[in-house]
Amino acid sequence: MKNKTAVFRREHFNSAHRLNNPAFTAEENLKMFGKCNNDNYHGHNYELVVKVIGYPDEQTGYVMDMKILSDLIKKEVLHKFDHRNLNLDTEEFKNLNPTAENIAMVIWNILRKDIDKELELYVILHETDNNYVQYPA
Amino acid sequence: MKNKTAVFRREHFNSAHRLNNPAFTAEENLKMFGKCNNDNYHGHNYELVVKVIGYPDEQTGYVMDMKILSDLIKKEVLHKFDHRNLNLDTEEFKNLNPTAENIAMVIWNILRKDIDKELELYVILHETDNNYVQYPA
Amino acid sequence: MKNKTAVFRREHFNSAHRLNNPAFTAEENLKMFGKCNNDNYHGHNYELVVKVIGYPDEQTGYVMDMKILSDLIKKEVLHKFDHRNLNLDTEEFKNLNPTAENIAMVIWNILRKDIDKELELYVILHETDNNYVQYPA
Amino acid sequence: MKNKTAVFRREHFNSAHRLNNPAFTAEENLKMFGKCNNDNYHGHNYELVVKVIGYPDEQTGYVMDMKILSDLIKKEVLHKFDHRNLNLDTEEFKNLNPTAENIAMVIWNILRKDIDKELELYVILHETDNNYVQYPA
Amino acid sequence: MKNKTAVFRREHFNSAHRLNNPAFTAEENLKMFGKCNNDNYHGHNYELVVKVIGYPDEQTGYVMDMKILSDLIKKEVLHKFDHRNLNLDTEEFKNLNPTAENIAMVIWNILRKDIDKELELYVILHETDNNYVQYPA
Amino acid sequence: MKNKTAVFRREHFNSAHRLNNPAFTAEENLKMFGKCNNDNYHGHNYELVVKVIGYPDEQTGYVMDMKILSDLIKKEVLHKFDHRNLNLDTEEFKNLNPTAENIAMVIWNILRKDIDKELELYVILHETDNNYVQYPA
Repeated sequence: MKNKTAVFRREHFNSAHRLNNPAFTAEENLKMFGKCNNDNYHGHNYELVVKVIGYPDEQTGYVMDMKILSDLIKKEVLHKFDHRNLNLDTEEFKNLNPTAENIAMVIWNILRKDIDKELELYVILHETDNNYVQYPA
Repeated sequence: MKNKTAVFRREHFNSAHRLNNPAFTAEENLKMFGKCNNDNYHGHNYELVVKVIGYPDEQTGYVMDMKILSDLIKKEVLHKFDHRNLNLDTEEFKNLNPTAENIAMVIWNILRKDIDKELELYVILHETDNNYVQYPA
Repeated sequence: MKNKTAVFRREHFNSAHRLNNPAFTAEENLKMFGKCNNDNYHGHNYELVVKVIGYPDEQTGYVMDMKILSDLIKKEVLHKFDHRNLNLDTEEFKNLNPTAENIAMVIWNILRKDIDKELELYVILHETDNNYVQYPA
Repeated sequence: MKNKTAVFRREHFNSAHRLNNPAFTAEENLKMFGKCNNDNYHGHNYELVVKVIGYPDEQTGYVMDMKILSDLIKKEVLHKFDHRNLNLDTEEFKNLNPTAENIAMVIWNILRKDIDKELELYVILHETDNNYVQYPA
Repeated sequence: MKNKTAVFRREHFNSAHRLNNPAFTAEENLKMFGKCNNDNYHGHNYELVVKVIGYPDEQTGYVMDMKILSDLIKKEVLHKFDHRNLNLDTEEFKNLNPTAENIAMVIWNILRKDIDKELELYVILHETDNNYVQYPA
Repeated sequence: MKNKTAVFRREHFNSAHRLNNPAFTAEENLKMFGKCNNDNYHGHNYELVVKVIGYPDEQTGYVMDMKILSDLIKKEVLHKFDHRNLNLDTEEFKNLNPTAENIAMVIWNILRKDIDKELELYVILHETDNNYVQYPA
């Protein structure tokens, strides 16, 4: 009998953002978020890895067709976030601080509704080579 | 008291393959597997990571000697698959579609019999930089 | 006054191939090319870098629009070679041994006719992480 | 309700070491550790990834401020181990064989005392591109 | 007798930018620069490699002390561009389109005045994993 | 007519070293080389790329057989330097400061005598991800 298998698909997007909590004063935001609070934004090459866990299909040998997963990520995530300003150009971060943790959670919520409920879903997001997150842990 | 520790060993092999299920018609195979179904095969630089979990030995500080693990992978996996056509040159994929999921499972079954039963075993297989799998999840 | 600037565009393709010179005997081919001569082919994830040198345009700041270069590579190179068997599925390698050196030269010849003659052109081709070539040197 | 999220911070240090168990004879050490037992040491560029799991803070969107985590790693780990001989220059490995497994455990013990007890902690240590470990598994 | 040797130092910065030529209409800019023209900016993790060529000093064995080069890059380049909006926050790109080609040229001009005239200088700038430039070629 | 083509072969070795000029006082060495002067050595995973330029052979399509080049590097370079202390265990650095510049020059001198004089030779040596050199430039 087969065990569950994890499959991973890597995609990329390039966005501007700034870290800022509107409930804080300007001083509090600068103190909390440092140079990431820069008024005019900065940006990243985000590397996104979507992890899906399930049983491989007996006939295809696939947990999920990576072409379908890639197309879904492109349509639902990259189309919204790539070459955008996360704070200004997206509904999701109008009132949510675009930390890597929150971006990963938002992407998970977007993808969860379109992926078969029998499959487990995880989102890994690299903000830089040195900082990355996984949601859920 | 020590906790269990995971050790990882990375190796590589280069193989030709095509995705094809003999129970499908040619049209069904092309529809299901797209360009991966190309009659005359295509190929990959597979990056294989073998993960072993156990307690480090008190005297050596090793969970498992990486030299022994590397030699085992070379002898049992690379010797069979490197610079081969997975569909034509191997017993394992004569009747099993060589998706990344199935290749990882096959490698796990090969290595499992030669690794101490007290050690947990996982196989991570990168087919490209953008597509990879882990068995078991 | 500006100097010439080099721009680089990276793309990927996955192909099967074998090294074989029809003018050699089977024994000579095996001796010369070793496991790369395997009858049923093996394969690689080829990483292709196209380097173009020229003066940045004063109005756009571009040596060459990377979108145009990427589309050209996809149309003229990846469409031919990706998910193909270089020896069997391509005209270019019917009678030419598909070593990394020769593949790079063939790609250079394909691209040269579609890139502005005032621009210098180089092709860098990674066959594996450990072996790569540049044409011309 | 949010799930727990994992955050990862990558740092580097360069150290000399040799593998050697003083309870073994010279012959036993050479047999067990091979070229890693070389009398005059050899060395590595260690790549250290520290993984912390917890709930993102509602106000900041952070599981943990990566600047604080990075500063902690620099102060408590890199300051001790970077550009040092692990066997000769550190208290931790005077009587403990500096295998990757043991170095990861030592770093975990160092960091654990300074990281909020509600946060889970893991240490991933790459000794080379091909050999790495995680503590705890 | 020794030959000239090249030394390379890699650094990183994260910036927002948009491609836009004020002499073009909005329609022309959108047509020319596509999604890179997004009104509210997007961003990148820029990877900067500074290459310096000269004769190694007989006493130190250094072409140039990498610590001094790194400090210079941090002070003169990263301090200006890291976590900034290139179009809005910098003097250099107030009237110059921040393409990779132009950013590399600007960095070269900044560094050239502080590096010994007997040393040759080149700037390599990676905008993404797939697009990068070198100035001069 | 074919142009010259460059071929590259990547190998690795792990060594201990310290930067020190015996003609300097201890204070001068510490001032000049900082933490790289640590008495008890530190170490690196050196990544070595050997670049050879020539005309591809008409019959094989090779500038040079990469298997032969790899075996040569292993026999003449890795056998001497891998898992060694460069300062203590090698003749070459008994009286020569093992900076990346000098190590690259030493490797070039070793390989030059065994590579066909019609082929051009270059040595690229990565000491860390952020510092590397090429000899000759």
